[in-house]
Amino acid sequence: MILVLAGGVGGARLAMGLARVLSPGKAAFVVNTGDDFEHLGLTICPDLDTVLYTLAGVHNPATGWGRRDETWSALDTLAELGGETWFRLGDRDLALHLLRTQALRARAPLSLVTRMLARRLGVRHAILPMSDTPVRTRVLTDRGELAFQDYFVRLRCRPRVRGFRFAGIARAQIPARLAALLASPRLRAVVIAPSNPYVSVAPILRVPAIKRWFACRRVPVIAVSPIVGGAALKGPAAKMMRELGAQASALGVARHYRTTVDGWVIDRADATCAPRIAALGHAVCVTDTVMSDARKSEHLAGEIIRFVHLLSRGRASF
Amino acid sequence: MILVLAGGVGGARLAMGLARVLSPGKAAFVVNTGDDFEHLGLTICPDLDTVLYTLAGVHNPATGWGRRDETWSALDTLAELGGETWFRLGDRDLALHLLRTQALRARAPLSLVTRMLARRLGVRHAILPMSDTPVRTRVLTDRGELAFQDYFVRLRCRPRVRGFRFAGIARAQIPARLAALLASPRLRAVVIAPSNPYVSVAPILRVPAIKRWFACRRVPVIAVSPIVGGAALKGPAAKMMRELGAQASALGVARHYRTTVDGWVIDRADATCAPRIAALGHAVCVTDTVMSDARKSEHLAGEIIRFVHLLSRGRASF
Repeated sequence: MILVLAGGVGGARLAMGLARVLSPGKAAFVVNTGDDFEHLGLTICPDLDTVLYTLAGVHNPATGWGRRDETWSALDTLAELGGETWFRLGDRDLALHLLRTQALRARAPLSLVTRMLARRLGVRHAILPMSDTPVRTRVLTDRGELAFQDYFVRLRCRPRVRGFRFAGIARAQIPARLAALLASPRLRAVVIAPSNPYVSVAPILRVPAIKRWFACRRVPVIAVSPIVGGAALKGPAAKMMRELGAQASALGVARHYRTTVDGWVIDRADATCAPRIAALGHAVCVTDTVMSDARKSEHLAGEIIRFVHLLSRGRASF
Repeated sequence: MILVLAGGVGGARLAMGLARVLSPGKAAFVVNTGDDFEHLGLTICPDLDTVLYTLAGVHNPATGWGRRDETWSALDTLAELGGETWFRLGDRDLALHLLRTQALRARAPLSLVTRMLARRLGVRHAILPMSDTPVRTRVLTDRGELAFQDYFVRLRCRPRVRGFRFAGIARAQIPARLAALLASPRLRAVVIAPSNPYVSVAPILRVPAIKRWFACRRVPVIAVSPIVGGAALKGPAAKMMRELGAQASALGVARHYRTTVDGWVIDRADATCAPRIAALGHAVCVTDTVMSDARKSEHLAGEIIRFVHLLSRGRASF
């Protein structure tokens, strides 16, 4: 059993690859909820939805968010009525937000709602929110503290980043099923998807029960570098690294995670970084990490599984 | 200035006719909110929306509810996700419900929200909810007490009606603007639209401030019969009258309203009822009341205005 820590697009694409090569009993996906927010009276969970839609095969591969075959009547009408339209919500997408918001208001935990939605969408692998209680990422910038979606979507990541705050993290409660998986003797590895280290992965690692698991873990943690050839494939990861004084490279990411990660999967484009990452005490796997289609996601998943087996044999060292 | 008490379709069609012949300063529309309800976490106001959409010219004339050029992606997706779809919500319609619900949650009064929506939709005549606080019509039936939309939409008016209850009516607060209009010396008449007497008009008449106005009114009240040729043009009015032991006819409606109404507008199809309605002490105007198109709505509006002038001359009797 592999547990994957995932943000949005990178996490979703890796989840798709792993779901194609591992049965539902062999992989589960823990998804960041720090970028969840309340908008138009709806609770929106962008990363959860990207993973959900991708595993269901109804995602929009062009945008990386939302659904394919989407229509925009509600948002067009909202514009006519003077409502907020900076966050793009398609009509089909809205249905999910309505249903989830209704269930959350009826006090169903987010993990239960996610499970129900996944079942309805025909997804058989477990998708678990990192927390059943709200965590909200706040971005500290040169324009002050911003709600994550304000920074990310409305201001298009333009403000200069100074740090992050995860409101609600100290009280974050992992779903019971996630607690069971973390404690399970069947758990072979945790894989950190190629997602933004600051706003996708850090919130997950800071959830108290997950933090405690990392502190005394007995299985390897493998990470796929979200930086390839000095750039993030999607999103502001590289920009954030530079603004925070880190080096926007596979090596910079490895330094950022330090001892949290045992084995690194980096792209062939960054092969020259491998010796220096190894010198930090990490195992390194060099392969193609750019998941530009399903076949490439599946290939990367296979490489990761091989890497897990390799590291598990030397398990005593973890 | 004429104040029109309106339910859904009949009220909306009469409002459209009056809005075409009277300037915004000369007519205002007071709309039933008893059939408002909470659904999918949204506050939906069917009668207000029918009047709003009709005056804005974006209504669907085929259905009598919802918008023209509507799309159904959200509801189709909701069906796939196992959500409730018995109440038909189009994508464009949803945008309005989202915006209104958001505003109501931010504690804006319904009258203010309605005014904002009307302005955005280019409606210049005042559309006033009968109450700024929630009133919810409950239908007492042979299957027990039902929420109005459960009875009306979900069960398609099949249960046998025994009575009605208007939850929240004792505390119902009319909008300040409606209070001002009722007290205005410019008010020349109140017109009761051809709407369901039990579930569209009765809630309005039972709002305490409106009830008090009727008790000591000094201007005539004119009603357009919602029953033509023994049948309701739309909805369950005739069925309800029969189930409650009343005669489903223009005369039956006149008897139902008794002294609440001073002058009756009935259809030519019911001309034979005129002497018996007159015998109840009412003035009677016989004309074409079936508003099958905008021109006919406008014609009826003209007849009503003439009737108001006629009755106002004999004002001393009210």
